[in-house]
Amino acid sequence: MTLARLKNLTASLTTAGLDAVILNPGPTLAYLTGVQFHLMERPIVLFVSPNQDPVLVLPELELLKVDLFPYKIQAIAYGEIPSEWENAFRKAVQTLGLDGKRIGVEPRQLRLLEFNHVKTGAPEADYPDASEALAALRLKKDKQEIEAMRRAVKIAQDALEATIPLIKIGMTERELSSELVIQLSRHGSDAEIPFSPIVSAGPNSANPHASPTERKLQAGDMLVVDWGAAYNGYMSDLTRTFAVGKIDDEFKKIHQIVQEANAAGRATGKPGVPCAKVDIATREVIEKSGYGKYFTHRTGHGIGMEGHEDPYIRSDNMQLLEPGMAYTIEPGIYLPNRNGVRVEDDVVVTEKGVDVLSNMPREIMTVG
Amino acid sequence: MTLARLKNLTASLTTAGLDAVILNPGPTLAYLTGVQFHLMERPIVLFVSPNQDPVLVLPELELLKVDLFPYKIQAIAYGEIPSEWENAFRKAVQTLGLDGKRIGVEPRQLRLLEFNHVKTGAPEADYPDASEALAALRLKKDKQEIEAMRRAVKIAQDALEATIPLIKIGMTERELSSELVIQLSRHGSDAEIPFSPIVSAGPNSANPHASPTERKLQAGDMLVVDWGAAYNGYMSDLTRTFAVGKIDDEFKKIHQIVQEANAAGRATGKPGVPCAKVDIATREVIEKSGYGKYFTHRTGHGIGMEGHEDPYIRSDNMQLLEPGMAYTIEPGIYLPNRNGVRVEDDVVVTEKGVDVLSNMPREIMTVG
Repeated sequence: MTLARLKNLTASLTTAGLDAVILNPGPTLAYLTGVQFHLMERPIVLFVSPNQDPVLVLPELELLKVDLFPYKIQAIAYGEIPSEWENAFRKAVQTLGLDGKRIGVEPRQLRLLEFNHVKTGAPEADYPDASEALAALRLKKDKQEIEAMRRAVKIAQDALEATIPLIKIGMTERELSSELVIQLSRHGSDAEIPFSPIVSAGPNSANPHASPTERKLQAGDMLVVDWGAAYNGYMSDLTRTFAVGKIDDEFKKIHQIVQEANAAGRATGKPGVPCAKVDIATREVIEKSGYGKYFTHRTGHGIGMEGHEDPYIRSDNMQLLEPGMAYTIEPGIYLPNRNGVRVEDDVVVTEKGVDVLSNMPREIMTVG
Repeated sequence: MTLARLKNLTASLTTAGLDAVILNPGPTLAYLTGVQFHLMERPIVLFVSPNQDPVLVLPELELLKVDLFPYKIQAIAYGEIPSEWENAFRKAVQTLGLDGKRIGVEPRQLRLLEFNHVKTGAPEADYPDASEALAALRLKKDKQEIEAMRRAVKIAQDALEATIPLIKIGMTERELSSELVIQLSRHGSDAEIPFSPIVSAGPNSANPHASPTERKLQAGDMLVVDWGAAYNGYMSDLTRTFAVGKIDDEFKKIHQIVQEANAAGRATGKPGVPCAKVDIATREVIEKSGYGKYFTHRTGHGIGMEGHEDPYIRSDNMQLLEPGMAYTIEPGIYLPNRNGVRVEDDVVVTEKGVDVLSNMPREIMTVG
């Protein structure tokens, strides 16, 4: 399967007018090889060039992983002395004849560390942005990928279900987050969860990207839990918002509006519809309610081997949905210094609409 | 405290002949600000330039975090449409007057994503490597940092202690790793553990950087567990190697050699000693035993807010140890297709020697 993926890549490189692409450890490398490497201080780069075996520059102590590759590669290993590294990269460039050529890069993933090493070996090359060609590779999920994502959603949901009975007034955001992390492992998540759960209550919940604090849950808080699991490297990313004890009627109303916006977003996706239309669908519900200025972010983002990837569900994104694309729908309303509410689901585009992978109740639930 | 750190940075920029440094989300940014940002598809960059308030470019939905800064900064926020981002970066460069100047970068952390945005705003600037100045900032740990690391070590040790009774022949590496992750959370680790535990047995243990597999533990395996916890963003990184059931006498001997190498490494560190000498101390023990060619990696690496950071304990590193430097000692012997053994501890340099943060027994223990 990874061989087919490699062939897709080399075909798309040719179409994009690229002579090669360089990849460091991250989702695209894992997708193409099935082998796990970590981003660290020792640079690891896979050079893929059409009609040649890929070349992998890596530290000697990772050499055993070369046997795990599902196709032939040329490994160039370096030792522990950093001054030797340059030579390994120079050799890689020479092996593939890449100096002066067009070498595509993935700016969201590639660090200056790897880039500078390659550039030293190929100073005359151009380094155009190959993000689009690379993202396109992973954009449409196959059956196996969708099943992994479905499993990642189920693990996340089961973990939160197991955590809910433990939520009490007086518990800190951090304690709750830690319990949720335990339940994620307990229910079978990969050790590398996609992100630390956001557990934010009261004023913190009005910050869409809050980190859990030592603040204790209080009656009247809205409690936002934004969490996900990973299964075989595929991610889920969900949000549910709870009422802690008795809350203001205004937030009951806001929760209802956000649910409706989420439902409108889920109902809009299907092949041929631009991503923007899904964003507009959730936004219209919130704008009509009068809270438009408090919905401060896009409606969602693609999901797969990365927590955030293409396609982005933004009002300016005219990319057309196609079967197999997977993304989140996560409208929210955030009243500064008071509370925030968000409801997030993961969907995959089918032939006729979307398959909603998450089915945990979205209605407001009282905890504490 | 973070203000003092910022002042240290601006002083060292001046010394290094730099007009500014740019930082993306990562340990240096967290060290200087105390504020957590995540690396994602939206570029976030802090510009630090002497005698001016730092400038932070960030997405609008992160704006509430600006209030968490312990000193005055100028925030330049952009919206959800990526075509607007360029303007925000141009404005940051203009605010600080940085085009044509020397802007230091951290290649191990900075991605092309952030770099390209800054470069569009400051095309005439030079971008020298500021790694050394930045690493120097975090190199010597203060009391509070050492206490956080001590706590991260204790959490890791307690988590493994709780896991050992559960180890059984027939259990998979992955099951054991998952149980250990649960215990790390249970014992108080931050949600973001420094790395997925390496749990590798038999032939997999001969790969120093193995990922846990579905292989079941068998009698005769050596079982390498390389794991760590995080506490308030500070890491621990330890390794212990177990015998599964009855093992070959050769591996008992090898385990003894590795323990002696580890002890020699621990005994060598003190102020004024070059890092290389610590590496040579462990290596000599293993070379004398005849297994020298099977010790395929450096003796250790610095540790703190990153799992791997300066100082590196390598035979070519003549950097002198100073009080407050923290690093791992992790000699190993790896016989391909058979078994590997590694014993790893974390130490901090004191006035007279080193303080060994980890005290879990290093002797071989039989499990299963």
